[in-house]
Formats: sequence, structure tokens, C-alpha cells
Amino acid sequence: MSVSVEELVAAIRPLDEKALEAARLRQEKLAVPPGSLGKLQDAAVRLAGITGKLHNEITRCRVIVMAADNGIIEEGIGSAPRTVTAAQAANMTHYLTGMSSIAHYFGDQVRVVDLGIADPYDAPQIIDRRIAPGTKNFMYEPAMTREQAVEAILVGEEMAKKAHEEGVSVIGVGEMGIGNTTTSSAVLCALTGLSVEQVTGRGGGINDAAFLHKKEVIQTGLTLHKPDPNDPVDVLSKVGGFDLAAMCGAFLGAARYRVPVVIDGFISVVAALCAARLCPAAAEYMFPSHASFEIGYAKAAEELGLEPWLLMNMRLGEGSGCPLAFRLLEAACAFTNNMATFDEASIDDGYLDEIREKDCYTV
Amino acid sequence: MSVSVEELVAAIRPLDEKALEAARLRQEKLAVPPGSLGKLQDAAVRLAGITGKLHNEITRCRVIVMAADNGIIEEGIGSAPRTVTAAQAANMTHYLTGMSSIAHYFGDQVRVVDLGIADPYDAPQIIDRRIAPGTKNFMYEPAMTREQAVEAILVGEEMAKKAHEEGVSVIGVGEMGIGNTTTSSAVLCALTGLSVEQVTGRGGGINDAAFLHKKEVIQTGLTLHKPDPNDPVDVLSKVGGFDLAAMCGAFLGAARYRVPVVIDGFISVVAALCAARLCPAAAEYMFPSHASFEIGYAKAAEELGLEPWLLMNMRLGEGSGCPLAFRLLEAACAFTNNMATFDEASIDDGYLDEIREKDCYTV
Repeated sequence: MSVSVEELVAAIRPLDEKALEAARLRQEKLAVPPGSLGKLQDAAVRLAGITGKLHNEITRCRVIVMAADNGIIEEGIGSAPRTVTAAQAANMTHYLTGMSSIAHYFGDQVRVVDLGIADPYDAPQIIDRRIAPGTKNFMYEPAMTREQAVEAILVGEEMAKKAHEEGVSVIGVGEMGIGNTTTSSAVLCALTGLSVEQVTGRGGGINDAAFLHKKEVIQTGLTLHKPDPNDPVDVLSKVGGFDLAAMCGAFLGAARYRVPVVIDGFISVVAALCAARLCPAAAEYMFPSHASFEIGYAKAAEELGLEPWLLMNMRLGEGSGCPLAFRLLEAACAFTNNMATFDEASIDDGYLDEIREKDCYTV
Repeated sequence: MSVSVEELVAAIRPLDEKALEAARLRQEKLAVPPGSLGKLQDAAVRLAGITGKLHNEITRCRVIVMAADNGIIEEGIGSAPRTVTAAQAANMTHYLTGMSSIAHYFGDQVRVVDLGIADPYDAPQIIDRRIAPGTKNFMYEPAMTREQAVEAILVGEEMAKKAHEEGVSVIGVGEMGIGNTTTSSAVLCALTGLSVEQVTGRGGGINDAAFLHKKEVIQTGLTLHKPDPNDPVDVLSKVGGFDLAAMCGAFLGAARYRVPVVIDGFISVVAALCAARLCPAAAEYMFPSHASFEIGYAKAAEELGLEPWLLMNMRLGEGSGCPLAFRLLEAACAFTNNMATFDEASIDDGYLDEIREKDCYTV
């Protein structure tokens, strides 16, 4: 594992060009009109570029949930009391939450990492990587020190490495932390220069007064700490959270250890954007799941050039889009590995040559 | 089974209101912010209304593929030679095509029904319900007689009934028939009054000249036969296909036998619209899968009030969206059946009462 974010970033390599080219050729030979399986075909090609193998299988999926509390909830901007972070982190290990019940149904693994849950819980399966019992209130002071942000990022890398060593085919990156749509909006503003209004929604659900205050709180934090948009670690430390920083590290770690990684909703996509700003090549290892209903999602996805696969009006977080996207990656592998090529399908592909020549789909 | 379309339609009942209400109540008790699992929660509620049971399981999924040839391909509007219908129908029974390779991976069943494949094939698993060796060329005469359209619709009902009797949890409705984006565009124009330009795409892929001709052909057929927009059977018989008619019957049959049914892409959604025009209550039994890249899809979906779940840029047909949507229905059942309620999750839901009172999500 890395001793610094710089070392982690430096270890990330681009996708395997030879494998990408071989995978593109295979897709052209499959007995379907060119490109007619759309993003599933793009995903199959990219999986090859990640693993270096033409034929990939999704046999073991894991949602990694970074859990931590946020000092900013003192301002009354959370949709739920702080104790919900501890309660739901524990419930996830018993597959009782929204995401984890779906993951468990499909046989996916769930790993919950405590980066700084403030309240006590009784759940020995939670992986203890506590940095502090929650961050500071960024209305008054930076959420954490730079050293703490780096520590959280490297925990993310550790979890990606562990998944790689344990033969996990694909990682999903989720979170649990009351107040983390507030930190995510703040980080997104700082990274992109977008206004608070453009990227802030009601998270788990808050009333008009709390919503207004949420936006004021974010603006105050940004004005006070002036996070450097060219330094994502600075941004994460000043107005982010332990969960966001660890998720960013998990995305970087996935790229370093060449494991495909699925983005969930708003918080996850902001962490992914932090990772991509630290290392643009890391974005090549990322796959979308759903377009979150939370308004900031679309902005962050646009920055990442990410086109979501699912339109489910979901806004739960936890990593709930990941078990859905895992199935789509399975589908991408299923037809790539198992369907007939034109030769095998007894289909004359003369008409396909015509399509290719005439660019029938460039309209 | 029914002896007429009128009898089939008359046997369709609306969803079970008591089960719908009980399912809505259960969703409110689940330990997630209200509505935060979006369309998955809507799907879970509707499944209850279909089956009459609060807890549903998706244990057996079946894609029913209606295969037939279309006389209109004499006009050179197909993306592939007619023989591809027979070849791919046969390949589906060996799970070698795009849809069937994905379905097989997930353990879904595939049933291919021959309504009128023109060319010979060697595939004993194909269910023989041949009406004629393809339809007539609607440039010169109606595609089929009204009696043939009714016959095809009742084959669709038969397949839905069989699925119901064999304990299938959910049906997907797919097709194989070179030329069937042309017939689907024609049917959609006839039903809605939309222009040929608005609903016609390049199907499997055709060059500019063939695309122009495809639109002329559709316009000529509509002008010549004047299908009655208030009589979907008339529309199907004049400018439709055996596949479309049988698919329409499968949607009606699914509603009659209370089996949830998934719509695939453009051709499937046009058949679904025919069914909904014959019997509006049938639409309550339908679930979307993906938004097809073929331009007419969005128009037909809008007519049906259907919001697609997946945005994959797919345009393969066959029923390829169905195995993807089956997984989403599984997910909807998984959390509904297995996750904790607020009581069980040790979460004080006082904040949820506040959210409900203040309509935090009416913005």
C-alpha cells in the first residue's frame, strides 16, 4: 500500500490498450447489429481494458460502505439524528438496510468501514478504522486536518487492495453518514466553482427552513476556508468528511489494483470526482449505476463525463445503486462470452459491411 | 382461453386495491427516507396489486419471443436478409443471441413462438403456431386478414396463460422478425396520428436511401389502407405483423392471468400500446425496461405514461431489455421482503413525520 496520496496516484496505470482493441474486435464479430447493445458493449470493452483479459466474469461483487459522522450536523441540516449513522452501519452488517438487503439477495458482499462513527454500536463485523468520533463543524473550523484526510484516503486504498487480494470482481462504493449530502455539496462547489444553489438538494428530506440553512452553512464554510479547487485533498479536509475521503481513496485504489468500480449516487459521484481530479486515469476504472434524484448528481456526473445507466428516482445512498449495476456488468460479460459470432450464427454479415461503410448511425 | 379479443379484454380486471394499499403502508414503514428507493418502491407496490400478495418473489422469469416475417421487406427496408429471422429464432433456443445469452446467464427461460417464419429452420424447441409464411406486403395489400390478427393475439394470450400455469413470476415480451421496426412505426403512426418522420428510425441499421424509402413505404401503407385508430385490431391487421399482434395478445394475457409483464424496446412498446388501447387496465400490469435508442420508443412510451428504468442506448430488440428489468423487479422484492422497518432498525422516525407533514419533496 501507499504511504502518500502522491505515491498512490503515481501507481495508477491507464487501461490496457491491446486488450481494449481485442475486445472491440470481438464486439464487432458478435451476431448483433453493430453497437446495438449500447453501453453494455462499451462496458465489456472497458472491463477488458481493466483486467487485460478478453473474457471477464463477474463472480464476486462487494459493496464497500464508508461510515462516519459529520460535525456540520450541529447546524441542524441533517434529515435524521446522528445516531442513525451508527444504527444503520450496524444494520448493514445484518443485511437489514435498503442497499444491503438487495446486495444480500444477489449474493453480493457488504463491507462496512468505520472511519469515525460518533455513537456506540454493537456490530463486530464493522471494520474499525476510526480516525476521530466524527469531523469538526466546518462552520467554524476545517472538518479535519490534511493528515486525517490522507489517512482516510489510504484506508480507502487498503479496502480496494483487500478486495483485489480476495478475488473480488467488482467493487461498489457506498456510504453511511448523516449530513453527508451537505459535505458532498460543499466539496462539489469547491472543486467546480458551481454555486451552492446549483448542487444542493434536500438529502434524506428536510423542511424549507432547514434547506435554506443548509445552503447558508455550505456557503459560509466555503467562504471561511477557501478550499483550493486544484487540491482535492485540501477540499476534502476543509469541507468534506471521513467517508468522502475514504471513498475517494477506494476509487483510486480500485484503479491502482485494476478492479472495476461502481459509483452509487450523489455522495459517491462526488468522491469519484475527487479521485478523477487527483488522477484522471482513475476515471477509466469507474462505471455508473443510477442517476440520483439528488440534484447535485447530474452536475458531478457531467464533470466526470459519466452517463448513468439507471433512472430509478432513487436517493437513498448507502451504495444502493451498486447491486443493480453489478447485474448490468454481469449481463455485459454474459453476451460477450457466450453469444454466437456472425460465422457461428449462420448469418451473412454482408449487410453489416454496408452499415459500417455508410455510417448508418452517424445521424 | 378466450374465443375472441372482446372476451379476452372483458376478462381483464384492475389491480387489487386492498393489496395496493397494504403494500403502500409497508413501504412507509421500511427504514428508508420516504420514497427514497424511487421506482423500485413503486414497482413493489404494483406487484402486490397484481398478485394480491404483500410479499412477492421473482423466482421464475420467462422471455416470450414472437417470431414472424414481414412481407414489407420486399421493399428493401430491412437491415438484414429475411433468412435472419429463421436463423436467429433458432439460435435463441440455444441461447446464442444477445438477449438469450443474457437470459440464460441469469437462469431465465426463453420461449420462441413461430407465428409465421418464412424460411426453414431446424429447431424443435420453437413452438409452432404458424399462421402463414410471413405477412403480405402492405404497400399493395393489408398485411393480414382481421381473422389472422385475432388468431395471433389469441396465441399471445395462450403463451401468457401457459406461463401462468407453469408458475412463471414475470414475463418479458420480445420478438424476432426482419422488417418489424417498419411495421411498428406504421402501427404507431396509425394509433397516435404522429407523423412517419417522428417515429421512424433505422432499425437494425440501413443506409440513407433505404431509410428514406422506409418512410415512404410506411406513408404509402397508411394512405392506402386507412387503418382505424380506434380499432387496434384493424391497425395490426393492415400495417402490423404476426409478431406485433401476438405480442399485443401476450400483454393482454398477462393482465388477464395477473402475471407482471416487462416491455422491451420499440417493437415491444408498440405492441404494449396496442394492448393498452384495447384495454387501458392492461397497462397496470406492465413494467418498463430500457429506453430504446430507436426514436419511436420515446413517443410510444409517452403515450403509455411509461418511464423507462434503463438508459443503455440499446436497440437490439429480441427482448434484450427484459432480463435486465427482471433483476430490478427482484431487487424491488428483495428490500420489500427483507429489510428492517423503523421499529426493527432502532431508528426514531419522528423526523419522518416532520418530512411528511411539511411535504419536503413537493418542491
